[in-house]
Amino acid sequence: MASAAVLGAGGYLGGELLRLLSNHPSLSVTSAVSKSHAGQSIRQVHPNLEAFPDVILAADAAHVDADVAFLAQPAGEAMQTVPSLLQRGIRAVDLGPDYRLPDPNEYARVYGRPHADPDHLAEAAYGLPELFRDSIRRARLVANPGCYPTASLLAIAPLLEKGMITGPVIVDAKSGTSGAGHDPSPSTHHPEAALTVWPYGAPEHRHVPEMRAAIARTGAATPPIVFVPHLVPLVRGILCSVYPTPLSSDRSRWADVLESRYRDSPFVRVGAVPRLPWALGTNRCYLSVQQAGDAPVVFSAIDNLGKGGAAQAIQNANLLMGWPETTGLDRPGFGV
Amino acid sequence: MASAAVLGAGGYLGGELLRLLSNHPSLSVTSAVSKSHAGQSIRQVHPNLEAFPDVILAADAAHVDADVAFLAQPAGEAMQTVPSLLQRGIRAVDLGPDYRLPDPNEYARVYGRPHADPDHLAEAAYGLPELFRDSIRRARLVANPGCYPTASLLAIAPLLEKGMITGPVIVDAKSGTSGAGHDPSPSTHHPEAALTVWPYGAPEHRHVPEMRAAIARTGAATPPIVFVPHLVPLVRGILCSVYPTPLSSDRSRWADVLESRYRDSPFVRVGAVPRLPWALGTNRCYLSVQQAGDAPVVFSAIDNLGKGGAAQAIQNANLLMGWPETTGLDRPGFGV
Amino acid sequence: MASAAVLGAGGYLGGELLRLLSNHPSLSVTSAVSKSHAGQSIRQVHPNLEAFPDVILAADAAHVDADVAFLAQPAGEAMQTVPSLLQRGIRAVDLGPDYRLPDPNEYARVYGRPHADPDHLAEAAYGLPELFRDSIRRARLVANPGCYPTASLLAIAPLLEKGMITGPVIVDAKSGTSGAGHDPSPSTHHPEAALTVWPYGAPEHRHVPEMRAAIARTGAATPPIVFVPHLVPLVRGILCSVYPTPLSSDRSRWADVLESRYRDSPFVRVGAVPRLPWALGTNRCYLSVQQAGDAPVVFSAIDNLGKGGAAQAIQNANLLMGWPETTGLDRPGFGV
Amino acid sequence: MASAAVLGAGGYLGGELLRLLSNHPSLSVTSAVSKSHAGQSIRQVHPNLEAFPDVILAADAAHVDADVAFLAQPAGEAMQTVPSLLQRGIRAVDLGPDYRLPDPNEYARVYGRPHADPDHLAEAAYGLPELFRDSIRRARLVANPGCYPTASLLAIAPLLEKGMITGPVIVDAKSGTSGAGHDPSPSTHHPEAALTVWPYGAPEHRHVPEMRAAIARTGAATPPIVFVPHLVPLVRGILCSVYPTPLSSDRSRWADVLESRYRDSPFVRVGAVPRLPWALGTNRCYLSVQQAGDAPVVFSAIDNLGKGGAAQAIQNANLLMGWPETTGLDRPGFGV
Repeated sequence: MASAAVLGAGGYLGGELLRLLSNHPSLSVTSAVSKSHAGQSIRQVHPNLEAFPDVILAADAAHVDADVAFLAQPAGEAMQTVPSLLQRGIRAVDLGPDYRLPDPNEYARVYGRPHADPDHLAEAAYGLPELFRDSIRRARLVANPGCYPTASLLAIAPLLEKGMITGPVIVDAKSGTSGAGHDPSPSTHHPEAALTVWPYGAPEHRHVPEMRAAIARTGAATPPIVFVPHLVPLVRGILCSVYPTPLSSDRSRWADVLESRYRDSPFVRVGAVPRLPWALGTNRCYLSVQQAGDAPVVFSAIDNLGKGGAAQAIQNANLLMGWPETTGLDRPGFGV
Repeated sequence: MASAAVLGAGGYLGGELLRLLSNHPSLSVTSAVSKSHAGQSIRQVHPNLEAFPDVILAADAAHVDADVAFLAQPAGEAMQTVPSLLQRGIRAVDLGPDYRLPDPNEYARVYGRPHADPDHLAEAAYGLPELFRDSIRRARLVANPGCYPTASLLAIAPLLEKGMITGPVIVDAKSGTSGAGHDPSPSTHHPEAALTVWPYGAPEHRHVPEMRAAIARTGAATPPIVFVPHLVPLVRGILCSVYPTPLSSDRSRWADVLESRYRDSPFVRVGAVPRLPWALGTNRCYLSVQQAGDAPVVFSAIDNLGKGGAAQAIQNANLLMGWPETTGLDRPGFGV
Repeated sequence: MASAAVLGAGGYLGGELLRLLSNHPSLSVTSAVSKSHAGQSIRQVHPNLEAFPDVILAADAAHVDADVAFLAQPAGEAMQTVPSLLQRGIRAVDLGPDYRLPDPNEYARVYGRPHADPDHLAEAAYGLPELFRDSIRRARLVANPGCYPTASLLAIAPLLEKGMITGPVIVDAKSGTSGAGHDPSPSTHHPEAALTVWPYGAPEHRHVPEMRAAIARTGAATPPIVFVPHLVPLVRGILCSVYPTPLSSDRSRWADVLESRYRDSPFVRVGAVPRLPWALGTNRCYLSVQQAGDAPVVFSAIDNLGKGGAAQAIQNANLLMGWPETTGLDRPGFGV
Repeated sequence: MASAAVLGAGGYLGGELLRLLSNHPSLSVTSAVSKSHAGQSIRQVHPNLEAFPDVILAADAAHVDADVAFLAQPAGEAMQTVPSLLQRGIRAVDLGPDYRLPDPNEYARVYGRPHADPDHLAEAAYGLPELFRDSIRRARLVANPGCYPTASLLAIAPLLEKGMITGPVIVDAKSGTSGAGHDPSPSTHHPEAALTVWPYGAPEHRHVPEMRAAIARTGAATPPIVFVPHLVPLVRGILCSVYPTPLSSDRSRWADVLESRYRDSPFVRVGAVPRLPWALGTNRCYLSVQQAGDAPVVFSAIDNLGKGGAAQAIQNANLLMGWPETTGLDRPGFGV
């Protein structure tokens, strides 16, 4: 049994990590860190995990000792912590944005501050296993992708690799509110969020530079990406509707490309139009190619806290540790 | 055309007051006050009211001049403002709790501070027109009831008056989240509120002393009230399920008592089990008496921002001004 | 007071027509027709309309006599009824699809049956007043647009007229479930609809030929339209996110074009990103132009039963009758 | 590995049984039956179960061979099938109502038809393991409780056993819509269900006689039960608010009684006010005793398809087979 640490254990991603790890056959949570809940036990903070081993949350990561650490902290914190973890021989999966943009200048442009750990930035693997499995296996630091890039890239990367998309790509994303995290805010206040569809992120969501960087890693040419996220009145789940241009009549060939690309990827399925509950609590991504007028459209469905967060982080940890990537992630989602 | 002022114009009740007043044939909004939005116009703060006269929000009520003022402020503010309004000859309808408990000692017990304006407290009419129409007509200050007391009292007061309830009354209330107001909070954070039913208010919600005081005003004996409010994933609407004890087999007599009590009350209807959209945006209360096993149960449905707030405040203002109580309140709710 | 008849009075559009007409100052509902509710009164079928005149629903339109008739029936029924209405001198606003495609061959292609009334098909005005006000004023038969075409065309027609869009237009529409009508179906079964976003309509929704025909009526060139409707867990409301190609950097010019085009249209507003409650129960359309990466995106928000249905039908009837188009439609939507 | 059959595999309970069984370490689904989906594979009917063994659904149970059969069929079907299953040595857990009322006369009164299998009716154990664990262990036929009785009885039975409730019990239940099953109906049509709280079941829901019979099995006196179920806009989850009379001041003693009663029951927890996501997809029941005015109130939260259906059925099967009752049921619910 290897040991795991969860940093940022009080938030939604932290809670989902702990939930999934509670049934992992090879990883045992031995330490957890949360500034705001230091001194409480995991079961006090997450009453749904009441059968969980009684780990007490620490205020910081100074005394964390584990085989692998999951960092689910606010942007900017991981790059302060990772150097020390790596130095102590702890593998790290960062669920935040700190290590997703390989270029420190691009990081500074997007986040408005210099990167605190440029050395490891260059070293970090981008943790989308279906595209970058080999580099993750060799890494000791993985940048877990954002939820939107996960859903979007799984839909478009294979088509870009095959040169089947040559113009701008439009991604219209619909997301549940848990992606906004644990802290109350006006746009996720229930009376404001429950009866509308809220497009946000103009002029450019931070996930767009991440998508561009990830596409560049595949070696494909990077098309212009028009990405508009919308909050919909769901808690969990993202559906991306992807409209590549120019229009094309290759629906079945597109489906073939996706199916063949993911033949050996157990968590991605290509088929009928998906329902979001199928992905709930899982590491699954459901893709579907449909015809809309003169163009094929690709739909991509994930749980933003699952494949878009905690479950994918565990898939990455499995690869880091040399285990089958499905370890501890074999539960199906809901029918309803 | 009489003039109206809205104090607390930036919140949900303030916005609903302005929305309803925008079509009132005899009242025109000539001033509005909002600490947090001072200097903005109404249409900037409430974009749904874009056809509205362009009143600029003031920071305080010092220069308000109007025939009637609506106070939709946080608890404790109205009792600072009302004395000056009344002195300047402005009638006042307070949508907050400051003038609902006629006994200053009870006020101090429930709210943990002395009442700042005990003189007017004794004078204020309790603004549930279906029960206290005459005293409202004679008043210059009206305490608009809370949303839960409105729905509960309309269901139980006539039965108490007739002596048909002699034991404890259990009120299980289900409310949308807009009742919690405009400010984000953990319990109304969408991811927390959207997938659960949340009972709160233990051990005693502040609306219980208000109900007791209102029943005492009717002259009926006050029974023990077990009141449990639950947040449900709706934005607007309250359904109260009222279980009087001891059990009784008088369903049809109960329905008769309610129907006859409200024969001349245009906003209360007794009939089939209601749907909340019927009440949406209106001053209506829908009552229904159904049999559940050995007991009649009374269901009461309102819009918490409508009959439970802004619409009832306008009904009270109509009475204060000597107009028909339905003035400006004749629009039906939604079918769906 | 002119008289109105509502055919198809039992459905959601019929109910919304009756609700809005109940406060119309110049139109009085004197007859109503519903096959499935014949013999019942309006208030029995629509309990939210309990203050409504007590019209009894007829089984068919044979004896309808009115100045204007609203037809809110299933596809294929209006074209059986309209000839007789017009012959009896009754103006007609059809809320169904029968008269929206001016070419009977296109109608036959899309609906799989010949048109039963091709003579009047050619005569019918297309009832989007903001684009075709003059032809509606001169008509005696108006084809009220579909909900999706209303939201989409208001966003794109002015840009097409000005030649600012030259390539394909992608419309990603998110709709509440009331658009599917009153009859239960698997895709609107609450457990299936409440926790997902459901793209449907592949390969071509019937509203696409309608949009093409409407654009042709404006004289502009018709671009390829990629239209994907999605059911979201709302009851009322449509948000269309419109992505015109090729990408452009003209965001502020686009906003200017829209604003100037609708300067004299009281129901269309161009401004900040809208919230759907603002449009609820109203005839409003809220447009917003935002930048997303390299492209301007247009958002268009309506109530599918309001501007997308019953309210626009009343706007059309107002024009047919020579009244101000805002008559009876002046209530604002909700803030929350 | 023992073998399991699922009858009624196409519905929501059938799907949840298959989902949970897909990770059961000791039970393998070897046959499945569905009239309406005969000839399809499980993964065709339930796309969320795509990693599942490829069992083809049969049209009837004639050739079912298994160690244990789960019957998730419409009322009235199980009593036709159970005799043959038992004769063939197959243990049976019936998730429908056929074997819940031990008295065939009471069955006939409640369901309006004679019972087709009165012999086994007397023999069936009532499958609420926390109350009747021993009799389930000895049985070959288990009547799995209804969702409402599960939540209600776990809250009140221990208090009745200790004589702490002597008068009528009021149960105000709030349920998600999945409890109504897979078939569309007017009350679960999304536009009707999403914006209201709908009390139903008057004058007596069929679950009330079931509760009375279950209480009688415990040996406690059966109080009058006033039970009102309400549909709330959730898909999964039941919260019961239980108000026992007469009022009492024994809140902490009540909590003690419940805690002590369930000390050895791994699936029942007594503590803070629960959130429904904690129970989602699990066999957990969360109880909480709170003070409301003069009375303790008990809240009980379950997933109606989990502890209120499929998960409890597997708990019962575990007992039938002599395994630890937690086998295959150890996953925690969601935090959010």
